Amino acid sequence: MDKVEARVLKGFRDYLPSEMIARARMLEVIERTFRSFGFLPLMTPALEYADVLLGKYGDEGDSLLYRFLDNGERDVALRYDLTVPLARVVAQYPELPRPFKRYQVAPVWRAEKPARGRFREFVQCDGDIAGSEDLLADAEVIQLGAAMLDGLGVKSFRIQVNNRKVLAGMLDRAGLGRGKQELDVLRTVDKLPKIGEEKTRELLRIENGLDERQIGGIFEFLSIAGTTAEVIRRSKELFEAGSVGRRGVEELEEVFGILDAVGLEGRAAVDLSIARGLNYYTGTIYESFLGELPGFGAVMSGGRYDGLIGAFAREEIPAVGISLGLDRLLAGLRELKVIEECESTAAVLVTVFDGASRALSARLAGELRAAGIACELFPQAAKISKQLRYAERTGKRVVVIAGPDEAARQCAQVKDLASRAQVEVPIAGLAEKVSSLLSL
Amino acid sequence: MDKVEARVLKGFRDYLPSEMIARARMLEVIERTFRSFGFLPLMTPALEYADVLLGKYGDEGDSLLYRFLDNGERDVALRYDLTVPLARVVAQYPELPRPFKRYQVAPVWRAEKPARGRFREFVQCDGDIAGSEDLLADAEVIQLGAAMLDGLGVKSFRIQVNNRKVLAGMLDRAGLGRGKQELDVLRTVDKLPKIGEEKTRELLRIENGLDERQIGGIFEFLSIAGTTAEVIRRSKELFEAGSVGRRGVEELEEVFGILDAVGLEGRAAVDLSIARGLNYYTGTIYESFLGELPGFGAVMSGGRYDGLIGAFAREEIPAVGISLGLDRLLAGLRELKVIEECESTAAVLVTVFDGASRALSARLAGELRAAGIACELFPQAAKISKQLRYAERTGKRVVVIAGPDEAARQCAQVKDLASRAQVEVPIAGLAEKVSSLLSL
Repeated sequence: MDKVEARVLKGFRDYLPSEMIARARMLEVIERTFRSFGFLPLMTPALEYADVLLGKYGDEGDSLLYRFLDNGERDVALRYDLTVPLARVVAQYPELPRPFKRYQVAPVWRAEKPARGRFREFVQCDGDIAGSEDLLADAEVIQLGAAMLDGLGVKSFRIQVNNRKVLAGMLDRAGLGRGKQELDVLRTVDKLPKIGEEKTRELLRIENGLDERQIGGIFEFLSIAGTTAEVIRRSKELFEAGSVGRRGVEELEEVFGILDAVGLEGRAAVDLSIARGLNYYTGTIYESFLGELPGFGAVMSGGRYDGLIGAFAREEIPAVGISLGLDRLLAGLRELKVIEECESTAAVLVTVFDGASRALSARLAGELRAAGIACELFPQAAKISKQLRYAERTGKRVVVIAGPDEAARQCAQVKDLASRAQVEVPIAGLAEKVSSLLSL
Repeated sequence: MDKVEARVLKGFRDYLPSEMIARARMLEVIERTFRSFGFLPLMTPALEYADVLLGKYGDEGDSLLYRFLDNGERDVALRYDLTVPLARVVAQYPELPRPFKRYQVAPVWRAEKPARGRFREFVQCDGDIAGSEDLLADAEVIQLGAAMLDGLGVKSFRIQVNNRKVLAGMLDRAGLGRGKQELDVLRTVDKLPKIGEEKTRELLRIENGLDERQIGGIFEFLSIAGTTAEVIRRSKELFEAGSVGRRGVEELEEVFGILDAVGLEGRAAVDLSIARGLNYYTGTIYESFLGELPGFGAVMSGGRYDGLIGAFAREEIPAVGISLGLDRLLAGLRELKVIEECESTAAVLVTVFDGASRALSARLAGELRAAGIACELFPQAAKISKQLRYAERTGKRVVVIAGPDEAARQCAQVKDLASRAQVEVPIAGLAEKVSSLLSL
């Protein structure tokens, strides 16, 4: 075979075992939480017809698709998120229960400029409720998100909630049209927490072509802060009864009524500057941040998208969802040192030597496993010193040594790597001895 | 948004909840088995530089890659298997433990002609040992595979084992050269179980250009059958001491010595017609079949590939692995009715009605979850009949009804869907009542 340099594509990465063990533990909590809310698992293909994905995320999203012609000259693209594939599924399978609550944990691909903490392949954990326009569903996915973060041991997080109708009302007040200009302005507003007010004003002027009066109107609105009750009261005053903005504020009020009832009042708050970059949102939107890492960016976000499924179905089907970014959150938890690092999946190594004892070693490993003890068989005959070094390198706690002498006497040496103590036990008592050492 | 037809690409599919629930249960067993053998989890990117994958699988494999130029004009391809990415990883990260035992569960993509049971995207579950040339490692991955099938409740399976060196010896005897012709002939031989002897002879003559004497030599060899001990004895007689074929037979003998010691003699057997289609195998090879579904094809396969990692590294690093096809196996287990079908992740539904009881419903669902009971909140106010139909449609066993009357009295109705019995309980006793109904 020709020699090739071992390397990964820019923006992609390998997850080595210590990272994967941490991720697996997180995924267990996340999936258990989804199931505890009765959400059903779903998996969709990595590749979709390009037209299924195009036009759903906005121009920027479209330009970031991994899109190509396949061997049959079909125009295809890797999935960009899990929401649009869900919308397709809901439209495609009328036999699914309705309302349909589903979760999906899967990688998505975006050809973004790689940056610190931004990758072109990353795993999203999404939970969505399709087929309910009731704001109870909005409150439930927020509650679900909070339960996931709680379960993962995140001590302080803030779920910042807004509503696209409120933002539409804000743009109405500033005399701006709907459609593309609306989205472009929202995308600029979305950058406010990252780039600050001055830079945001400049972008609104130069890139979005807004005049000072319009920009002033937007910032008069965005400057409303305080408790959720205060923000709701003050922003309500800005909108006429029956206007789209007022409806948005009333929706926020109802969602927070339910969040209060389920004890989430301290974890979620209204934040009028939350805008979300994606095209398809229509109502409630939210982003969640780690309280102890203010500059870290959102780890979980989502919202209501009542028009998306209708792009695939004969009827409009309202839907709302939440998406947790597994790898972003893991990076955050690592920075907070909440993650317990672990290098191994088995705590026991069984040694291997040349000759007649090899088969015994393999048999002992099998017997330990049959007793419920995860254990690794060293996969080749080697010096004991090399095997002990490997045991330490891979985080083992106990080494079972069974060489030719032990095979002749039908016994094994059991070495506790922490105390370095070593005892000989008959083979019949091996599992019990190892088990008692591991439970110390 | 423009209307688009909801559809998936040919050869791809959505996994709906009942399928996903069955897969999740299988994956739990599979991953637990990998960990019980001390294998470490790894994840590699879906996309690789094309040159990392090219030339490893043979011409047919190369032609089936999903390969394209990305937005930066890089020549990239979706991974075709999990073995070549592992080889790259072993070469790329000298800091990994050596020997390195890893598992990876992930989809792979092959632009094959779709057929019944053959898809362009499917999940492989791979376990490999890199860095050991000891045949103990070959025996261990076979043992690992058997433990997975056992754990999954597969009652009768056969692991059919051969060795590429034995096949090389067979081709030597037939006077055939190495390299491309060897691989082409093996790929034809690989089809023997599917297409039968007559058609195989015809292909060897027409497509591979072999003469009758050569074909006769191959079939003289392939006709050796019987117990593993008999096949080893008879095939040994065909090869001179020191020849590559003889070394292959001796390797088989050693592997089976270990398999016998760990009690696998009944599950694995030598089968000289197993050839494996992929380029990179160099020693032991195996395929596993479901005993009760003779025509179903292999559900698990693998082998030794001592030259592959060297394509990426300065040194040769021997390796051996096994790969279980999750979806193929699931299809087989479904046919055998070994899979328990399940439509739900929560056994309890909490109803929702308009008005003041909504918040109570959300709170009760949260309290049940806090008590460890997975439960779903119906996500919108609706008639009780609609909610009960949904509960039955989604496989619930218990429905908790909390409407305005119950809210006023701080109680809830608990309905057992099987017996249709309904009792009223105070809210404080709800979790206990539901729990006792579920444990019946």
